[in-house]
Amino acid sequence: MKKIGVFTSGGDSPGMNACIRAVVRAAVHKGIDVYGIMRGYRGMIKGEIIRLESNSVSNIIQKGGTILRSARSKEFMTKEGRREAYEQLQKFGIEGLVAIGGDGTFTGANIFFEEYGIPTVGAPGTIDNDLYGTDYTIGYDTAVNTALDAIDKIRDTADSHDRVFFVEVMGRDSGYIAMPCAIGGGAEIVMIPETETSIQSVVDTLRLGWDRSKTSFIVIVAEGDEEGNATEIAAQVQKALPYMDARVTILGHVQRGGAPTAADRMLASQLGIACVDGLQEGRKGVMAGIMNSELVYTPFIETITKQKIINPYYAEMVNILSV
Amino acid sequence: MKKIGVFTSGGDSPGMNACIRAVVRAAVHKGIDVYGIMRGYRGMIKGEIIRLESNSVSNIIQKGGTILRSARSKEFMTKEGRREAYEQLQKFGIEGLVAIGGDGTFTGANIFFEEYGIPTVGAPGTIDNDLYGTDYTIGYDTAVNTALDAIDKIRDTADSHDRVFFVEVMGRDSGYIAMPCAIGGGAEIVMIPETETSIQSVVDTLRLGWDRSKTSFIVIVAEGDEEGNATEIAAQVQKALPYMDARVTILGHVQRGGAPTAADRMLASQLGIACVDGLQEGRKGVMAGIMNSELVYTPFIETITKQKIINPYYAEMVNILSV
Amino acid sequence: MKKIGVFTSGGDSPGMNACIRAVVRAAVHKGIDVYGIMRGYRGMIKGEIIRLESNSVSNIIQKGGTILRSARSKEFMTKEGRREAYEQLQKFGIEGLVAIGGDGTFTGANIFFEEYGIPTVGAPGTIDNDLYGTDYTIGYDTAVNTALDAIDKIRDTADSHDRVFFVEVMGRDSGYIAMPCAIGGGAEIVMIPETETSIQSVVDTLRLGWDRSKTSFIVIVAEGDEEGNATEIAAQVQKALPYMDARVTILGHVQRGGAPTAADRMLASQLGIACVDGLQEGRKGVMAGIMNSELVYTPFIETITKQKIINPYYAEMVNILSV
Amino acid sequence: MKKIGVFTSGGDSPGMNACIRAVVRAAVHKGIDVYGIMRGYRGMIKGEIIRLESNSVSNIIQKGGTILRSARSKEFMTKEGRREAYEQLQKFGIEGLVAIGGDGTFTGANIFFEEYGIPTVGAPGTIDNDLYGTDYTIGYDTAVNTALDAIDKIRDTADSHDRVFFVEVMGRDSGYIAMPCAIGGGAEIVMIPETETSIQSVVDTLRLGWDRSKTSFIVIVAEGDEEGNATEIAAQVQKALPYMDARVTILGHVQRGGAPTAADRMLASQLGIACVDGLQEGRKGVMAGIMNSELVYTPFIETITKQKIINPYYAEMVNILSV
Repeated sequence: MKKIGVFTSGGDSPGMNACIRAVVRAAVHKGIDVYGIMRGYRGMIKGEIIRLESNSVSNIIQKGGTILRSARSKEFMTKEGRREAYEQLQKFGIEGLVAIGGDGTFTGANIFFEEYGIPTVGAPGTIDNDLYGTDYTIGYDTAVNTALDAIDKIRDTADSHDRVFFVEVMGRDSGYIAMPCAIGGGAEIVMIPETETSIQSVVDTLRLGWDRSKTSFIVIVAEGDEEGNATEIAAQVQKALPYMDARVTILGHVQRGGAPTAADRMLASQLGIACVDGLQEGRKGVMAGIMNSELVYTPFIETITKQKIINPYYAEMVNILSV
Repeated sequence: MKKIGVFTSGGDSPGMNACIRAVVRAAVHKGIDVYGIMRGYRGMIKGEIIRLESNSVSNIIQKGGTILRSARSKEFMTKEGRREAYEQLQKFGIEGLVAIGGDGTFTGANIFFEEYGIPTVGAPGTIDNDLYGTDYTIGYDTAVNTALDAIDKIRDTADSHDRVFFVEVMGRDSGYIAMPCAIGGGAEIVMIPETETSIQSVVDTLRLGWDRSKTSFIVIVAEGDEEGNATEIAAQVQKALPYMDARVTILGHVQRGGAPTAADRMLASQLGIACVDGLQEGRKGVMAGIMNSELVYTPFIETITKQKIINPYYAEMVNILSV
Repeated sequence: MKKIGVFTSGGDSPGMNACIRAVVRAAVHKGIDVYGIMRGYRGMIKGEIIRLESNSVSNIIQKGGTILRSARSKEFMTKEGRREAYEQLQKFGIEGLVAIGGDGTFTGANIFFEEYGIPTVGAPGTIDNDLYGTDYTIGYDTAVNTALDAIDKIRDTADSHDRVFFVEVMGRDSGYIAMPCAIGGGAEIVMIPETETSIQSVVDTLRLGWDRSKTSFIVIVAEGDEEGNATEIAAQVQKALPYMDARVTILGHVQRGGAPTAADRMLASQLGIACVDGLQEGRKGVMAGIMNSELVYTPFIETITKQKIINPYYAEMVNILSV
Repeated sequence: MKKIGVFTSGGDSPGMNACIRAVVRAAVHKGIDVYGIMRGYRGMIKGEIIRLESNSVSNIIQKGGTILRSARSKEFMTKEGRREAYEQLQKFGIEGLVAIGGDGTFTGANIFFEEYGIPTVGAPGTIDNDLYGTDYTIGYDTAVNTALDAIDKIRDTADSHDRVFFVEVMGRDSGYIAMPCAIGGGAEIVMIPETETSIQSVVDTLRLGWDRSKTSFIVIVAEGDEEGNATEIAAQVQKALPYMDARVTILGHVQRGGAPTAADRMLASQLGIACVDGLQEGRKGVMAGIMNSELVYTPFIETITKQKIINPYYAEMVNILSV
């Protein structure tokens, strides 16, 4: 393999740049030419493809976002779009691809690989951590730390007043971010999509605490919780407990940015190198990941379809620790 | 003066602890006994009053929140409540008060002082910066830096996608926090209570930028803006510009917490000492502040009634810099 | 088991408080009384022992340092000292101990356990990560992130000038902190106790880069490197390469402080609970740790004598990535 | 004026990028062409000059360092060097200059202006804050906050042990950084070039505290203190007080990096605009600054020769607050 392309796609995550850097440096180290494909599949279709040298990725390891930018592409979901993309890659002589992103990215990569057979290895770049085939995704550790830092600041003030704070964190389908935020943030309650927590039970827990003269509470809400978003939940709780003062924080995209943590840089660097190694070893249609400290390659189809389950013990930890 | 009391009241702000520490240490330095009154006027009425020594305030200068806690008190708004408060102070032999808080705090302090004549000097502890009599209030610099840090993280991701981010910052009545966030955060638009910015003009500015192929935008919204809160404004803009993707972040009480910045610690320390100095010099019914690098004492009534106006040049700066 | 004691000993590490909190809350949850032993073995000997309730550990999860304080004790190294310690524990009716610390702590705990048979379970609280029996120690992740944050700031300026920066990080006997700092910090060279890197080879690498017109370099030095500390190494390099400007940063104890990261809070919480569970299950003379996501208990003697080896692949990563 | 050049020179400081951005955007806003001169006077001599557009400075406001890089130039100290520089400027048609830097920068700018009369306006970009003509220099607030953050972390551990920490901060000629670090960091002692503090008096203060059972101390040392650097001072104190454990942290260039604070971004933005305004109004040979909230222009010669004196009250504050 003489020429490879690398791109980022889907929602960006801290550490994507560190991963791009590792891909480029590992390729240079092996004497492989690397091309950066801008804006994911959108730029692939349009041929927005640039040569990357070792110094193209200098001083980016600590930067949030992605220098290759990211976008969602409707065209790539069509056969015509993918044909155009393939032709562009042919034009540049690109023989292999490194795809950095989440399940949407790998769904696209999988179809593309099945249709055109172009060897592709993926790296899990998403803050959501909900991909099978790796213990942690690139950006997850940073997102959790960012949210936790905000929760710490809220606790400063929670400690001074008589209030219930509802903090909405990312997690459309999972409580991966919410759970360590609840444990690490010393929250009393956590509401995640995976488990049902009724408004009534939230109200009961708060009332019980209040009666024991506990004066402030933090409730972590994953954005995809079945009871609604933090604003909606807070409104209902406020109604049931009018003597408490409910306040809402929605962190939103703040969680996607920032300098990646050490763990995310290490993971991004290891997996970036592993993607290039994988391509060279002839792997295709797989995602590189770390499971139990071991490098593993998992077929795209499994990363998308198999479910990764959050440690059920964490819910018990929240209970034990908020005693 | 042999015995003084110190309390924090209203919404807490980073630097209140640094100010309490300075009050205590300055008093000890002068041989004055200090008492901490817990939970503001509420604790004053209930006699929740404790002796503070020099080491009671060790290792708190960097802490958010307030070790004396804070609360709002309806009782203190009644004549009976204030009488009880006065009697409690008498009981402890407290001859002077240091009140750390915002306009609500000083409104109460002013009435109390007028009724009972107990010498009171205030320090401006509020993140809102909307008090006349000081260039900056304690906690303002920290709150702005906290918000800016969040905006930086959003910009990481804004830079990678095609989006409009609406970030709601504190400021019920003023744009003091919103304005430096907009300038320092490189925002395209800022919406504050002091000036009218119609949804239509926001839409126009965004469309203009979009047409010039600018791909991401940040709009800072002070919570008290006349067009509504960030969620409401974003919904309207999204409707007018369906091809853009509008996202909302509400920082909320995150802005009240965190370790105070250097500037807030310096200000809190200076004003804490100045409060004790002021009491000893016989000042009463005034707030200590720094204006143009000079220590000044302003009557409570002026701090509440006179208006502090945000530098009108800042709005022009936003325009020049987002060119 | 009805009464247990908990203490921290040796150099403190971020997350010790989170661990103490978990021990206390887990004990309360099980109906076990908990006592805090101040200043490690020193306070054990002197009987500085206090009752801890659930709310004794409120709002400490995010705090650096240890509320139980820490100290080194020469007396405990004597038979008499340990006898006094044992008698104090007897006096309080303490039937089991949770020891949070590093190898010094466990060496003491091991002897004490062998002499008096008092059931003891340890949690690895040290930034050094050099304990066998756990993949990570409590505080390690925080220390690395703190150092990395400093290196990022240096890189800002390194990027603007023609300089060689020597950054000394902790690690008397190991490169555990230095290695991820080098990889995550994008350093060109890393010097650790485990491997020999001569001054000459450092000079050669720098000269080679300089000749290729690379204009700034970062060298990470573990304090225990065989070539000396950062100041000494920098002086020698400066002499060999007079046209470069060598600058030194020594982070020192900065790395021991700060709010623990999410990972450290999770680890501290899990292991704190595991210590109490372990005591209740009848375990003794062991340290709780997490290896490959599994909770394991390792005899003290093994944690002290068995060697944990840093992933040799990391050194190769530094080479590949600084290409 | 139709074409101006902008450059950064000397030691870099956080906020230089924000200032460059403001210069460029203000110029674009006025219809003036802007050129970036790389590496200060060195690039001016070599003609390393590039056109800057509005989007050349997108997303740099929050970045440490300087996109124009910085260097020191021996050639510019010669008549020949300055002639070459002038010729390069002529070649590009540059009619005015914005110089961002410290006293070395303005010394050069002053000579150059006197020799060739090219209108030059400066902005104070240095972390040292020792320039006459502005209350604060760009980068100073950030540097102090960075140092303070490190000191906070040391205090976490100081609070747990029996130690004396010596923290060396920048300040070759002044205590501008050391002083707020001491006050805001709750240090017991501060050693700055402006005032003499003998080793003996340090030892006495520490011994006194120790005798009163104070168990940990922080001493802030400005690098240019007359008693030596922190390592030297610590060694002497350790010798005099062998029962204490003295530890040293040298922050070094960490203080030059990092995202600028809100205050530094505001200052940089205001002064960047003011430099362009100044040139257009016909000002030359002056530095823009803010004194008592007012924009002022001070002749270069005064900024270099007049002395700015640190508030003498600060030393008293350290005493009062460490009571």
